[in-house]
Amino acid sequence: MNNKPLIEYINRYVNLTQNEINLLLENTTNRKYLKGQYIVQQGDICRFESFVIKGCLKTFYLDNEGQEHVVLFAIENWWTADFSSFLTQKPAEYNVQCIENSEVIQFSFEKMEMLYQKIPKLERFFRIIIQKAFVASEKRIVRNFSLSAKVRYLEFKSTYPQIEQRVPQYLIASYLGITREFLSKIRGQIIAEQ
Amino acid sequence: MNNKPLIEYINRYVNLTQNEINLLLENTTNRKYLKGQYIVQQGDICRFESFVIKGCLKTFYLDNEGQEHVVLFAIENWWTADFSSFLTQKPAEYNVQCIENSEVIQFSFEKMEMLYQKIPKLERFFRIIIQKAFVASEKRIVRNFSLSAKVRYLEFKSTYPQIEQRVPQYLIASYLGITREFLSKIRGQIIAEQ
Repeated sequence: MNNKPLIEYINRYVNLTQNEINLLLENTTNRKYLKGQYIVQQGDICRFESFVIKGCLKTFYLDNEGQEHVVLFAIENWWTADFSSFLTQKPAEYNVQCIENSEVIQFSFEKMEMLYQKIPKLERFFRIIIQKAFVASEKRIVRNFSLSAKVRYLEFKSTYPQIEQRVPQYLIASYLGITREFLSKIRGQIIAEQ
Repeated sequence: MNNKPLIEYINRYVNLTQNEINLLLENTTNRKYLKGQYIVQQGDICRFESFVIKGCLKTFYLDNEGQEHVVLFAIENWWTADFSSFLTQKPAEYNVQCIENSEVIQFSFEKMEMLYQKIPKLERFFRIIIQKAFVASEKRIVRNFSLSAKVRYLEFKSTYPQIEQRVPQYLIASYLGITREFLSKIRGQIIAEQ
């Protein structure tokens, strides 16, 4: 399977030597999932952080009423996991499920710690990408409070055009925290304005 | 000024040598702010990441209608900044203002990079604490979608009891994304139930 995207991605931030690349690849696992399969399920412990080589996945939370709430999407060159569960090795609150057939490279919790010790550059790499994820997450909180659903939908479309095309509308509605009927109304409005 | 809380906090995650501690403290700045003063204002570049030694601060966003949206609070042993602005050195979207007279230790953008180079353990330290911040932020998004304002208020009270006692109610309402009238109603309900 193709590991190049992962190495290229890491090398945007740090420079791995060939030995470090070999060590990394020896201690990660490539894995394929079918559409519909779960990488982690609510209540289980999330054993892996997964880098997406190919495919599309959603992280979602199922509330007490059985309602699905999409937390995140992941496509090529993104990371996915229940990060809280992975970091604490306690049961997951979220589910990560494939929306398309997907290929990922997985870092297990045990190997991850060893890799940090042997390749300290990975601390820097993950520090930087998690900072970016944190900043994006903070922005989303504020946007959810301060912007209309229509503006947030337009922002989502322009920030993640690839996801918008690959994901069913009802999941986008869930990600935006609105009903599918309301999203459908917004889309109607946008088309009428064009 | 007292630097001990910062060193103790960092040493919960990594072990700094005395030389590293000295280098760190030589390259950070202790600063006091009065209640009402701003550490960063929307539109300015955020030059510092600040560790709170004493006091209470809020990070907020002012929308086009002039409405204030509280993103985060910070008290003793927390970090504050417009992290997006700090990391990119582009104009801030948020304001960080002191709710009480505050004392902080500041890391400038330039010194920060040098400190990462000279004390690689700091990569690990910040990687770990930013992971925690990211996980908390993700949870907040899902809770905002899936839990009632009352449940979120009760969670806020129990998770951050210290903040609840030090911050005016209208700021807590803003943090929860509800009006102050609605928060007041919820508090009335809770008291009636006790």
